[in-house]
Amino acid sequence: MVAVSDEDWMERCLALAEQAWGRTTPNPLVGAVVVNDGLAVGEGFHPKAGAPHAEAFALRAAGDLARGATLYVNLEPCNHHGRTPPCTEAIVAAGLQRVVIGMVDPNPIVSGRGLERLRTAGIEVSVGVLSDRCERLNEAFSHFMRTGRPFGVLKYAMTLDGKTATRTGHSFWISGQAARARTHRLRAFADAVIVGGNTVRLDDPQLTVRLAEGRNPLRVVLSRTLALPAEARLWLDQTPSPTLVFTGAQGDPQMRSHLERLGVEVQVLDELTPAAVLEKLASYPCVSVLWECGGTLAWSALTDGSVQKVICFVAPCLVGGAQAYTPVAGEGFAKMHAAMRLERVHAEPVGEDWMWSGYLQFNPRN
Amino acid sequence: MVAVSDEDWMERCLALAEQAWGRTTPNPLVGAVVVNDGLAVGEGFHPKAGAPHAEAFALRAAGDLARGATLYVNLEPCNHHGRTPPCTEAIVAAGLQRVVIGMVDPNPIVSGRGLERLRTAGIEVSVGVLSDRCERLNEAFSHFMRTGRPFGVLKYAMTLDGKTATRTGHSFWISGQAARARTHRLRAFADAVIVGGNTVRLDDPQLTVRLAEGRNPLRVVLSRTLALPAEARLWLDQTPSPTLVFTGAQGDPQMRSHLERLGVEVQVLDELTPAAVLEKLASYPCVSVLWECGGTLAWSALTDGSVQKVICFVAPCLVGGAQAYTPVAGEGFAKMHAAMRLERVHAEPVGEDWMWSGYLQFNPRN
Repeated sequence: MVAVSDEDWMERCLALAEQAWGRTTPNPLVGAVVVNDGLAVGEGFHPKAGAPHAEAFALRAAGDLARGATLYVNLEPCNHHGRTPPCTEAIVAAGLQRVVIGMVDPNPIVSGRGLERLRTAGIEVSVGVLSDRCERLNEAFSHFMRTGRPFGVLKYAMTLDGKTATRTGHSFWISGQAARARTHRLRAFADAVIVGGNTVRLDDPQLTVRLAEGRNPLRVVLSRTLALPAEARLWLDQTPSPTLVFTGAQGDPQMRSHLERLGVEVQVLDELTPAAVLEKLASYPCVSVLWECGGTLAWSALTDGSVQKVICFVAPCLVGGAQAYTPVAGEGFAKMHAAMRLERVHAEPVGEDWMWSGYLQFNPRN
Repeated sequence: MVAVSDEDWMERCLALAEQAWGRTTPNPLVGAVVVNDGLAVGEGFHPKAGAPHAEAFALRAAGDLARGATLYVNLEPCNHHGRTPPCTEAIVAAGLQRVVIGMVDPNPIVSGRGLERLRTAGIEVSVGVLSDRCERLNEAFSHFMRTGRPFGVLKYAMTLDGKTATRTGHSFWISGQAARARTHRLRAFADAVIVGGNTVRLDDPQLTVRLAEGRNPLRVVLSRTLALPAEARLWLDQTPSPTLVFTGAQGDPQMRSHLERLGVEVQVLDELTPAAVLEKLASYPCVSVLWECGGTLAWSALTDGSVQKVICFVAPCLVGGAQAYTPVAGEGFAKMHAAMRLERVHAEPVGEDWMWSGYLQFNPRN
């Protein structure tokens, strides 16, 4: 591999970091490359929490060739003792001449400390190479570090006339195979996938990762009444990953017992809101959650600040129906100018469909 | 202008043809360039029905320089006497060596006759340069020639959660200025813009061309009951263009008299369907119509074969609402696989919004 710029090497770091897609919670995705005289002499990525950091793998692989070399890493190296020793010390000890960093640590308490330590040791430090992409890769981690709450992604698939299901509730398949595979990749990253009771009743979903590589997320159901099917794939097969049901004070006790007998954990919250559920999930820890719910729950999650990013797959077809299902239901805003605007909107074709993504404009809970 | 290929000159023809955007009904948009020794020596476009054809303008401008030159034109030259003499004769008489044509005449009765005449005269003829774009430019004309019915374009603007208005019917403004200007350009091309009674009641629209260059289309309202506002901009101001109302046997006679007193033409159809309305409009002649209606009428127009192309502006915002308005309402299909699929789908950003376009797959009425 011949690289000609800092950006090229940072690109390599991002590709390395992604090797651990969905496996690092509550840690970030990090990749590192040691470059000596224009050649990669050591590479590494952080494979999972508790394992060594990316820098440690890359330095170990480089050995003596790290002396006088440049280290590329997409996130500021840590300067504190956690489960592993500080990366900054290893970098100083290895005799590196230069360190190129994608973004500073989003944790406000330690942000900048790593840079400072390296500069004090006389190492040349550059920050902000491919910073947009570095920040996007770890947007969930950054949000979690800053707010203590999971990063919420609302995902839905709709027709070009804005329907997520026909008037009869039928939705298989709005999206083509490529878009469905992309959804499974989102699941492989999410620590939890959340649906409401309606989705269980209508779709009997598995919420597992089948069309992509990766591990299955925790599967979460919100149901105020527990008026749920006695038999559903989410309870009958818990081999892929556990299912967790949240309910409120009115949750049917018989259904609760039934679920518990099947090994499903049921948690009763005083107030069953998306935000209360995320607060509980934060301690699992869930750094990122994927809302794959219907319109009613989507509206609640959006309006109580539990969604930071929206991903919408649009299929080029029209299904019609005044009574068909809509991606965001609930009460809705009365005036168009009250609508929640998305920023940093991106649209790209995915197979025969298009994938839109965007971020909700900042609000105090985001 | 230095052109290096047939495609470049055909591009110039298309740009010339577009000068008459919306003004040639029932004729097509045509531009022509005479190129002698690599230089444009004559250009022209067809400005309106009854005026000379594009070829005639280009040949006149070229004069003697047409001898031995190449003529570029986006549509096969006519070979028959209409209101103007056949272009093929003028081309032969001018001594052109080569003619490059974008697409053959879509009228099955005369298609290919022009080429034949030119080839018989010993002129080298090439067909199909930038054919996709040439066909798209005159897609309405082609449809009208083949079927005798106006080409129907359904246009709507929606939020990313599929709403055309909030639960209260409020829709100003879903789209940004750029998308609205694009809609006005569509109006400038359409021979008629059609809405239903709901749109008049909710939006009191003008349906005129204000944010783009061009002439105003005929403004058409479909209303089964004539339960319409006594005062609406469509009746109170008919300076921009006439308003025409279609109703059925149940149309309120009092409202009909009221409208007629205001100078609005009211036509009563035995069966008030989109297809019946298009049949009437064909004789105006309307070669292309723009459905700017709400979801109920859109569903009727789609399902009775009165829509060939769909243009959807998507705004990057979420407004929510189980009772909000949807672009295609009516009964809707029961199963997702029954959905009408679009083909040749194109999506592009227009200001802060995105514009989607696509064609309904062929059905016998298209």
